[in-house]
Amino acid sequence: MSHPNINELLDQIQGSLHADQAKSRFFHIWKTEEPLTCKGVCFPRTTEQVATILTWCHKNDQKVIVHGGLTNLVGATKANPDQLVVSLEKMNAIEAVDTQTRTVTAQAGAILENVLTAAEKEDLFLPLSFGAKGSAQVGGVVSTNAGGLRVFRYGMTRSWVLGLEVVLPDGTIIENLKTLRKDNSGIDLKQLFIGAEGILGVVTKVVFRLIEKPQTRLSAILTTNQFKNVLQTMRYFDQHLGPRLTGFELLWKNTYSTITAEETPYKSPIQKPDNYVIFVEMLGKNVERDSNDLQDACAHSFEHEWISDAAFFDSASEQEECWKIREDVALLEQNAKHNQHYDISIPIDRIGEIIDSIVQNLKNLKGVLDVYPFGHVADGNIHLIVGKENNSEILTQNINDIVYQPLQEIKGSISAEHGIGIDKKPYLHLSRTKPEMELMKAIKLLLDPKNILNPARIIN
Amino acid sequence: MSHPNINELLDQIQGSLHADQAKSRFFHIWKTEEPLTCKGVCFPRTTEQVATILTWCHKNDQKVIVHGGLTNLVGATKANPDQLVVSLEKMNAIEAVDTQTRTVTAQAGAILENVLTAAEKEDLFLPLSFGAKGSAQVGGVVSTNAGGLRVFRYGMTRSWVLGLEVVLPDGTIIENLKTLRKDNSGIDLKQLFIGAEGILGVVTKVVFRLIEKPQTRLSAILTTNQFKNVLQTMRYFDQHLGPRLTGFELLWKNTYSTITAEETPYKSPIQKPDNYVIFVEMLGKNVERDSNDLQDACAHSFEHEWISDAAFFDSASEQEECWKIREDVALLEQNAKHNQHYDISIPIDRIGEIIDSIVQNLKNLKGVLDVYPFGHVADGNIHLIVGKENNSEILTQNINDIVYQPLQEIKGSISAEHGIGIDKKPYLHLSRTKPEMELMKAIKLLLDPKNILNPARIIN
Repeated sequence: MSHPNINELLDQIQGSLHADQAKSRFFHIWKTEEPLTCKGVCFPRTTEQVATILTWCHKNDQKVIVHGGLTNLVGATKANPDQLVVSLEKMNAIEAVDTQTRTVTAQAGAILENVLTAAEKEDLFLPLSFGAKGSAQVGGVVSTNAGGLRVFRYGMTRSWVLGLEVVLPDGTIIENLKTLRKDNSGIDLKQLFIGAEGILGVVTKVVFRLIEKPQTRLSAILTTNQFKNVLQTMRYFDQHLGPRLTGFELLWKNTYSTITAEETPYKSPIQKPDNYVIFVEMLGKNVERDSNDLQDACAHSFEHEWISDAAFFDSASEQEECWKIREDVALLEQNAKHNQHYDISIPIDRIGEIIDSIVQNLKNLKGVLDVYPFGHVADGNIHLIVGKENNSEILTQNINDIVYQPLQEIKGSISAEHGIGIDKKPYLHLSRTKPEMELMKAIKLLLDPKNILNPARIIN
Repeated sequence: MSHPNINELLDQIQGSLHADQAKSRFFHIWKTEEPLTCKGVCFPRTTEQVATILTWCHKNDQKVIVHGGLTNLVGATKANPDQLVVSLEKMNAIEAVDTQTRTVTAQAGAILENVLTAAEKEDLFLPLSFGAKGSAQVGGVVSTNAGGLRVFRYGMTRSWVLGLEVVLPDGTIIENLKTLRKDNSGIDLKQLFIGAEGILGVVTKVVFRLIEKPQTRLSAILTTNQFKNVLQTMRYFDQHLGPRLTGFELLWKNTYSTITAEETPYKSPIQKPDNYVIFVEMLGKNVERDSNDLQDACAHSFEHEWISDAAFFDSASEQEECWKIREDVALLEQNAKHNQHYDISIPIDRIGEIIDSIVQNLKNLKGVLDVYPFGHVADGNIHLIVGKENNSEILTQNINDIVYQPLQEIKGSISAEHGIGIDKKPYLHLSRTKPEMELMKAIKLLLDPKNILNPARIIN
């Protein structure tokens, strides 16, 4: 389907171009060599331009794919030749860091890391932290309800959004850019768009709340042989350190060994890693006090034989090294050919057995080469990177089945933080009931009756 | 409009009765002498019975008003003679406190305080705290997205809901009772029902997340002459005490003086209260350390002349007394004849001037007798109790206008935590834009096309 007057639209939005020209001249975030398949690319500079684009597309049945920082992992930004890409990258202003209301207001295309830095300049803190923060744009961060390393203490992105401006699929602007911590004046519409992966509207601006910046950071690596000890240690650390405990992450032994193997840039700070390696982060304000408390918690865990070894880090450089071991997912991906990345949620007391059983079943499947489990154990969110012999559809499906099938019975989730996109859509019914999926469809149809915005994501 | 076969429905839901019989035999929460006006009252005992009721009502165009603990302040539970009341009070089981996933699952009719107590028995903590917790039911708490005394640190009710079961107006059960901290599997539908005041569905069960129970509590009362010093002190306390600062509340001088006047049960712990009296709560685990830090923060504020006096409380009984001064709203209401209660949100840096101006304008209005401002200053949420000569509609409207009109320009809210209900509906347009209100209506129409559930609340 082609619309002869799409050029009029593209002309109207200053700076918009067709895909082939866009890549070289305007499209800074398009990093892969592969050309972008689409009908054209728009680079709106204002909310009104986003509204103009969507009004036109709604009227002319033109399907639209929204692009932020392209860091999603579920195929959510794939486009095809009859779809128009709307990239928010030119709407990247950080409009205000307000030290009185302790909020930051940013346009959707602002890079998360720039927002974090702007806040920190005013001794304020937005605790969102994940690997892609250097390229993820806040519009996408909100639309994905991104998680990361500190959810356990600080919650997902949703917990930090005070205000939102969204353009609906028909071009209507829903503006609610308040800096209020409390607002119960009717249905809280912004909640509908947070984590909706852009299928209900295009996020154009965000107000995040901020907190006081912690003044000190400490880290530790612990190891233990049994999963039940991981949970025991976690609860004790949480009781003993209180809200200063901000990260409690886990690598299974083979994942840890792969990252700290001789040929990698990383050296294990633990002599003899046991079955589980725990990464602890502690944010506070008094380094001596925090350090004593952290060491006390480790000593207590050691005495009770919950852990078999521990290493502490207080210098910034040491901690950076330590957390790279946890965060260098790219190294795992290099190691695991034709890999698939999973991102599941499991009720926390069931993690040990469920992951053991998934790993065992994967290893028994012909074609699977590597299985690397790791993740946010304190949130019940475990990632798996699975390497395999080839990219055949049947092998992929068999692996998906092994990973996803146990989740329905235990009320887990097929996506803790990455979202559904296109890739996980066939498995959504394992996480959500039929009435839930029907309601999602009804809401989509209400807001986007012509199904023009990010079509075929999450639901059909 | 009458349905001859409503008795069949009432028979089907065991224990349901007509209103006149209900009051004496089953309706424990109906405390006022005034009879309940309605067609009948249902007391469902299961989610399926709620579904049966709504299916029947949807089919037969029977309007339904949902009753929880009847603690709302916005007329949300008023019924008229052709409406059927559905009271959740028999669905009051606390189904599970899970120490592994650190969650509590409760039926909608469970009293909040019972849920808090059940959690505390397992050394776990749900930080929701407000005056009505001894009678508010969790279904209503969720439907109102209740706030209270610790929102500043811990967020509103929304922040604590992990799972929800809701019956839609047509009887469909939406079950999502997960204990997961992270679940990005599609649109997060439960967010739609939190704070929607029951117009989109009846909440039947809730899963709350819990945290470790703090082991110590300290309180202080401070006083200062200038509003800017309130904010300065707050930020310093927040920096100095970190996440242990869990409450920072404010009484304007005349409110404080009224509560601590000679004829009341309360004695001011401060010799000479200045224009503003601040109440501080600190939750931690080491009473000596916390006490030193709290006193340091006060000393620092005193040296910088941000505050003019301070009193500390460490014993449980002293603290109880101290917080009663902050919480005895009933005493203010007794003092203020024909009173109206307001609950507004203001960007935090504007609170001082806006409240001054509202109070001045109210005092200049003939018929206004008393104005008592107080509230959650750290959240930007100020309550006003206004006493007046009579209940005439025009006086009420004039007072509403004075309180609400300044809010639109400064992007405030006419309801920080109480909700809109019936009483604040005429003013919703001051807090929300026209497209927002249109979208609320569209969502209501989608879920409740026959407008049977809690009709005329929030929007028409």
